[in-house]
Amino acid sequence: MIKDEFEWINSITPRHFFQKEVVQGIGDDAALWSVNEEMDQIVCVDTMVEGVHFTRDTLSPFQTGFKALAVNVSDIAAMGGIPQFYLVSIAIPTEWSEDELQEIYRGMGDLAEKYKMDLMGGDTVSTKGPLVLSVTVIGKVEKGRSLLRSNARSGDSVFLTGITGESAAGLSVLLEKTRHAAFTSNEEKWIRQHQMPIPHIEQGRILAGSGFRISLNDVSDGVASELNEIAEASNVSIIIERNSLPVSESLSDLPEADVLNHQLFGGEDYVLVGTAREKDFKVLSDTFKQHGLQLYEIGKVGEAGNAEVYLHKQDEKPKLLMKKGFNHFRER
Amino acid sequence: MIKDEFEWINSITPRHFFQKEVVQGIGDDAALWSVNEEMDQIVCVDTMVEGVHFTRDTLSPFQTGFKALAVNVSDIAAMGGIPQFYLVSIAIPTEWSEDELQEIYRGMGDLAEKYKMDLMGGDTVSTKGPLVLSVTVIGKVEKGRSLLRSNARSGDSVFLTGITGESAAGLSVLLEKTRHAAFTSNEEKWIRQHQMPIPHIEQGRILAGSGFRISLNDVSDGVASELNEIAEASNVSIIIERNSLPVSESLSDLPEADVLNHQLFGGEDYVLVGTAREKDFKVLSDTFKQHGLQLYEIGKVGEAGNAEVYLHKQDEKPKLLMKKGFNHFRER
Repeated sequence: MIKDEFEWINSITPRHFFQKEVVQGIGDDAALWSVNEEMDQIVCVDTMVEGVHFTRDTLSPFQTGFKALAVNVSDIAAMGGIPQFYLVSIAIPTEWSEDELQEIYRGMGDLAEKYKMDLMGGDTVSTKGPLVLSVTVIGKVEKGRSLLRSNARSGDSVFLTGITGESAAGLSVLLEKTRHAAFTSNEEKWIRQHQMPIPHIEQGRILAGSGFRISLNDVSDGVASELNEIAEASNVSIIIERNSLPVSESLSDLPEADVLNHQLFGGEDYVLVGTAREKDFKVLSDTFKQHGLQLYEIGKVGEAGNAEVYLHKQDEKPKLLMKKGFNHFRER
Repeated sequence: MIKDEFEWINSITPRHFFQKEVVQGIGDDAALWSVNEEMDQIVCVDTMVEGVHFTRDTLSPFQTGFKALAVNVSDIAAMGGIPQFYLVSIAIPTEWSEDELQEIYRGMGDLAEKYKMDLMGGDTVSTKGPLVLSVTVIGKVEKGRSLLRSNARSGDSVFLTGITGESAAGLSVLLEKTRHAAFTSNEEKWIRQHQMPIPHIEQGRILAGSGFRISLNDVSDGVASELNEIAEASNVSIIIERNSLPVSESLSDLPEADVLNHQLFGGEDYVLVGTAREKDFKVLSDTFKQHGLQLYEIGKVGEAGNAEVYLHKQDEKPKLLMKKGFNHFRER
């Protein structure tokens, strides 16, 4: 009966209207489909839960909104796309005030303005549990972009579009002191990186516009985790050079082991990580510089057939880097 | 700085790529935008919270998934559109099992198959609170459809595409006995209507395909509430005839006041309610019959300038129908 009914709708609808668009899943929470001859539409959804991804001690309501949208926009950046619209679904506990709800929307609006994104609508419902904020972002990208995770090949340069580690350092401070404490200027820098990350849309646009074969991910779960995803999708090994990893001057007073941990496993940095041919990397690096941006070479893609990621330091034996991503609040 | 940065992206992106598509909000939780010359894209989001919109005693995990998708597909029906894709965000409590999570997805898949919809992706996160299930549906509709709430005019016929009241009767039984009890065959009919409503996509397609001026809403919050929205958007009064309201034979053993309450205020029926010119209604009604469907005339649009809804019965004075929608579990 199910199929028959659908055939019947067919009979009152132009035939070409039912031609299946190509849908391509990109990871778990993003996908794209074709809508006309020059562009593909992208859609991403991401959910933040109070007590799991943030607490009222780590993010203000304004920052909660800002970050929930930023996380989704970062998924668009990882596809080299331009964000266009967003929809919001909020399950809000009764103890949150109307003002706080408005602050969440204001935080989203603040980031949305940067990209001229329109709020298309949403659904606000009450809950007896913690706040659940789910954001859907719709964007677009020119057809023919090739920023797939499966694009890494032996000999490629591995790159980062920004430093990592500050966000995790900021979270660590927030968990210890809460956001209501007094901070050093370094701590303030880290905390801001954790609370209000700026997605790397511009960097993604340059990468997509180059036409080069590039593999790409945004760093939400940590550099080690994202590179493991690329290694698996491309079935290649990846070797990171310890001394090439860009590090923030502001972290220099922390123990070296903590800094390395934040850089590789901290996550929530929302920079981009990927690979490109060695000669293409040089072109990209120059283009980035022309726009006042940085592209850091952090290692090389190794052999095909061994989907693992290694950390190498001078004459030491390379260490295997497991996914071990960001664990949110589970280990508190 | 914010604007400057955006202008800069402009400089590395084809100019026409940034031309603003027209975005039109349709109610709070749906919107549409133009993607090519023949069609508009539609997006809807709706969220169901355990303990607010359902409990484990009213819906099985399978039904929870089925209904969450149905509610969104019904928003597409109200725009005369065809559903294409969906994305799912689930915040799931630790006490729900992996099997139950799979059942939620299976329930969505069951309805999705009916419309050949693809699951595009989603985000599953853990929560210490109740289950929160947020679904985003993307669909499309031919340009030039005119099913806006503001389309009602004096003299129009008011119509329903199906009966209402069974879903509320089913909920009432479920709240009293839970879904694990034994039921009469009538009760089973009502309960199924509450647990697994079938959206009126076919009916919406006929209405959109007619090219007539039509106002339209889907009945999620109750007939009285949806008609009040049309009355407000069109700034007209609407008069419903008590004796024209279609009623289910299965409700005939219930007290008349309960039945009327379920019909007008129960909600979650997911049929369509709207208005069309009197002569167009007759054409639509014939088309519906040809397809084995029903279109019920339940009243008329009255004067312009008075945005209110009335219930009229024979020689009695018309009664004002307030919005008073479905209150979910708040009154338990």
